[in-house]
Parts: sequence; structure tokens; C-alpha cells
Amino acid sequence: MTHQVTLQVQAPRSGLFNITEQVQQAVAESKIQCGMCHVFLQHTSCSLVIQENADPSARQDLENWLARLAPENDPLYTHTLEGPDDMPAHLRTAVTHTSENIPVIQGKLGLGTWQGLYLWEHRHHTSRRQLVVTVMGT
Amino acid sequence: MTHQVTLQVQAPRSGLFNITEQVQQAVAESKIQCGMCHVFLQHTSCSLVIQENADPSARQDLENWLARLAPENDPLYTHTLEGPDDMPAHLRTAVTHTSENIPVIQGKLGLGTWQGLYLWEHRHHTSRRQLVVTVMGT
Amino acid sequence: MTHQVTLQVQAPRSGLFNITEQVQQAVAESKIQCGMCHVFLQHTSCSLVIQENADPSARQDLENWLARLAPENDPLYTHTLEGPDDMPAHLRTAVTHTSENIPVIQGKLGLGTWQGLYLWEHRHHTSRRQLVVTVMGT
Repeated sequence: MTHQVTLQVQAPRSGLFNITEQVQQAVAESKIQCGMCHVFLQHTSCSLVIQENADPSARQDLENWLARLAPENDPLYTHTLEGPDDMPAHLRTAVTHTSENIPVIQGKLGLGTWQGLYLWEHRHHTSRRQLVVTVMGT
Repeated sequence: MTHQVTLQVQAPRSGLFNITEQVQQAVAESKIQCGMCHVFLQHTSCSLVIQENADPSARQDLENWLARLAPENDPLYTHTLEGPDDMPAHLRTAVTHTSENIPVIQGKLGLGTWQGLYLWEHRHHTSRRQLVVTVMGT
Repeated sequence: MTHQVTLQVQAPRSGLFNITEQVQQAVAESKIQCGMCHVFLQHTSCSLVIQENADPSARQDLENWLARLAPENDPLYTHTLEGPDDMPAHLRTAVTHTSENIPVIQGKLGLGTWQGLYLWEHRHHTSRRQLVVTVMGT
């Protein structure tokens, strides 16, 4: 069985935003009990990560650390026409993930207790992002 | 066909530990000949990578390089309540992988000659880690 | 339905090379309309990323940025017997991706308008690389 749906999400600002609930909803609709859920972002300036869902300070540190690793206005960049946050967004996407796979166990996302699925928006002016969720299994 | 099993693994210390054999065992049990094997860690302070299985010095360099990239006691961190190795563990997980997918070819993991699947434990005090292995195919 | 094929690709030099067309071909051959396409590299010194397919300057910046992050001849390295570009290649692979999953929508790769799938060759002397493409769905 294969169930596929496109979701639209928009982050209020740059940073990590929990999208576990929307994806869980797509898994429930699929009626699939055992298998895998693939979540794919159709963009190159935002990404996905599975991270701690408890203390927001961890997400803030992730954002600040990655911003230091791939900063704006680095003299190394030649791709600057789309604004100072564009090339950093591509770099931050390259070292995180365009898609994540999560097992489906007894009809639900098989995340650990402390795991959440996050959209990581890397642009300052956010826009609507398309997520393709594909659930496969039995 | 879908086969799903939960494995428990514990690394003896922080670093990379080869878990290819345990996962290969789950693939053999599935009887699936052609498809995909998804390995998912239900944690946010350890990760998975596929890396060279020959010379242990490569794994040592990986560990040292990532420790320099996301060091302990960085003044940037605000998430410090769970110990000096907790926030580095989340960062190191974010830039590596919570899950890996490996093709199943003729009933076996389709890894290249020099590839092994590694649990990368990022905490000093290790604990038992849960891995969900989902094998799908025909 | 499961369709699996092995492709061979060789980059002309180190850097990012668009392999979307070859993978799209494998999806077309599969006749699968809705599902997922898994692309797996059987190597540990090259990797995959999904990145902007428009302006080549973005790929040049990716290459230069990652080369700075994991440079050649870093005194940290002990794994040096296979040449100065070998250990950087493993590190660059660890923080990007050995495999990528892309949804299959109406018989085609469900990439966004600006997304392309790239082989990222990290060695200077390139060689033929094996890609296992597994398409699953209905």
C-alpha cells in the first residue's frame, strides 16, 4: 500500500518548527499499520531534522551554531544575487536533510520519546513550503 | 512485504561502532530478496553513518574532527543542564543521520566493499539505544 | 512493486554533478506511478545532495565551503596513507548523504522546480561510481 499527500507549511520566521502533528495526520489517513513514512521538502533553502522536542533552548543553540558554521556575508561566497541569507541557506540544507524517513509502527510515527520532526527554515522572509509525505507498508 | 524489528545496541564508549552484522541479520530474517532496509535511531544524541570499514584510523579522525566542529563547553550553548556532552551530541546528530537506507540486493544489504553501517554514540556515559529496522520489498 | 537497477557514473573532476536525468530514466523504466525512489552510493569518498539546479555559482560555493570545513592536510588527521584528499572525502561524505530518497509522483521524480540530484565527488582522481537505484510503489 502507498499513500501520498502534499502538505503546505510556513514557518513564522527562520528556525526550527515542529511539524510532527501534520505528518502524523497523514500517517493516520493512510491506514497503514507497519512500514515507513518518507517526508520530502521540495526546496533547497530549508531542511528537515529530527531533534529533541523538550527544551526549546536546544533548538535555539542548533540555530545559532549552524549560523556560525555557515554565516551570512562570508567573503567566500560568489552566489550573492538572491540576498545574504540565500547561500547560507543552501549550505545549511546540504549538511542537514532534504528528507527524513520515519518507521510506521502500529499505525503511528515510530519516533522516540524525545524526538520531534522539524522544518528548519533558513530564509528570513519565509514562504509557503511544500512537503510530500509518502507512507508505504501494510 | 514489510518486516520490522527493534534492535537494542549499546556502544562501549563514545565513537563509531559497526552494527552491520545485526542489521544484516534482520534482513536475512525478513526473507526479502530485493528492496530496501531502513534503519532508524529513536534518539537525538547519537546518530548513524555509513563509512569506511577498513582502517580504524579513519573512524578516529571522524570522531576528532566532529568533536572539534561541535566542541564541549562552547560559550554559544545555552542548553547546558544535561551536561557538557549533551548539546554537542544534538549538533553532531543534526549534521549526520538519524536514519540510513540501504538497498537489499539478493537478500543482503547492498553495501559497497568498503562500506559499513556505524552507530555513532555522542554521549560519554553510553546507554542502550533502540534501532527500528524496517525491510520492504519482494 | 519494486524495481532495482545499478548505474555507473563518473564525475569529470571533484565537485557536484547533476545525475537527475539518469535516475529519472530508471524511474520511467520501473513503470511505478506513485511511491519512492531511493538512490544509494556504494562508496565512502563521494556523496549525494539535492541542491539548486539553476546557478552554477551556488555549487562552486558549496564545494569551496565544504573544502574549508574539511580541508586537506589538516594536522588532526592520522588516516593519511591513501592521499591528502582521502580523509577529507570521508568527512565530507559523513556530513552530506550516502543516499537520497525522492518521492515518485505520476511516474516521475517529485523534485521541486529548483531541485536537482547531484553526485558530489570528493576525490581529485575520479573513478567510476556505482549507484543502486531502488524504486518502490504502485
